[in-house]
Amino acid sequence: MELKVIAYARNGHSDKFGIPRQSREESPIVTRIVFEPDYRVAEALRGIEGYSHLWLIWGFSEITNDQSPMTNDTWSPTVRPPRLGGNTRMGVFATRSPFRPNPLGLSSVRLMRIEGGDLVVSGADLMDGTPIYDIKPYLSFSDSHPDARNGFAEESKGYRLSVIGDGLRDVPDEIRRDICYILSQDPRPAYQNDPTREYKMDYAGLRVVFTVDEARVYVKKIEKIAK
Amino acid sequence: MELKVIAYARNGHSDKFGIPRQSREESPIVTRIVFEPDYRVAEALRGIEGYSHLWLIWGFSEITNDQSPMTNDTWSPTVRPPRLGGNTRMGVFATRSPFRPNPLGLSSVRLMRIEGGDLVVSGADLMDGTPIYDIKPYLSFSDSHPDARNGFAEESKGYRLSVIGDGLRDVPDEIRRDICYILSQDPRPAYQNDPTREYKMDYAGLRVVFTVDEARVYVKKIEKIAK
Repeated sequence: MELKVIAYARNGHSDKFGIPRQSREESPIVTRIVFEPDYRVAEALRGIEGYSHLWLIWGFSEITNDQSPMTNDTWSPTVRPPRLGGNTRMGVFATRSPFRPNPLGLSSVRLMRIEGGDLVVSGADLMDGTPIYDIKPYLSFSDSHPDARNGFAEESKGYRLSVIGDGLRDVPDEIRRDICYILSQDPRPAYQNDPTREYKMDYAGLRVVFTVDEARVYVKKIEKIAK
Repeated sequence: MELKVIAYARNGHSDKFGIPRQSREESPIVTRIVFEPDYRVAEALRGIEGYSHLWLIWGFSEITNDQSPMTNDTWSPTVRPPRLGGNTRMGVFATRSPFRPNPLGLSSVRLMRIEGGDLVVSGADLMDGTPIYDIKPYLSFSDSHPDARNGFAEESKGYRLSVIGDGLRDVPDEIRRDICYILSQDPRPAYQNDPTREYKMDYAGLRVVFTVDEARVYVKKIEKIAK
């Protein structure tokens, strides 16, 4: 099957670093789903406002970490999930890793509103520019299994860092809220643990410079990214 | 993106008629996920036994009702969901209809066991022979929203018929359980309401002949399908 891009995701995650590893109900990050001209049809959304949540099926458009990029002919039966420290290999079908035979992503998001023909959603784990292939309503009676066993992902369920630092002072409230949320989820690769190491994360046109010591993120500065 | 078939679904639904309209936790229907030779790799499933539920992303391989078949170039912004009686048009992205720009299906299923390199699952809403493009673990902390608002699908949540009739007598227990479950969900197209009308449903090599009167299915006979 040849998939057509029906829309693109637009949000502040201009860079892969910092994107939440899964969609989360509590995430304040707002993403705009901007339809491609052929699919920008008001009637195609008729009735969607009755649903509180939607599914997005999307493509891992940029795969750039230590593993080799996915092509149509190569895939690895095992991957090293970041939440296991990056050293333990698990079967690709037991993970939500991008390195899969068909690099499709799946995210449930909250529908906030329809605006100018776009869908505005929150809670997505998508990079700016991610291609979207399908949008479906979330049906609680078939899609919700609150007691599902989460395999090796279980233990990291509630893991959060506290976020402090003078750098947070001079940014607008909404952006601060987003940045604090993202950093609280510990965006460091594979549980690195060097309190002197400075990290840089780009979000919403800003560069955030921070360090992590134990369970605390210290934001040193936030500055506009020069164009 | 060009999708590759990684597996095919195998179950008793040799015909489209009778396939549940969504996956359901309580469904007893067993489906075997049989991997294609290139993806039949034991390591690709390592750790999957820790999950109670999985996601399947699959293709609507056979679209044969009153609407015209989907091709890569045609799609309709609105569809007529069967649960609304087949007369009301809703936006395609507000439905789980097959008639979508990219005819992908999404189903959560219960993982029963791994057996001879296959995954054995229950609760799927797939026809025998459905191509599968991806298998992902279900993560309750990002995928489960028990209180999600279900739009126009809400009212049909608990709709069930009772199933009786002499025809049920001479079939094995497991098959009877499956057939009773399928019929209780009312497989009739678009809420037809003619108590004299005889329906035929093929399941697991059997032809089930039944009528529906009010909230009751009467199974007249079940016979082997001649090869």
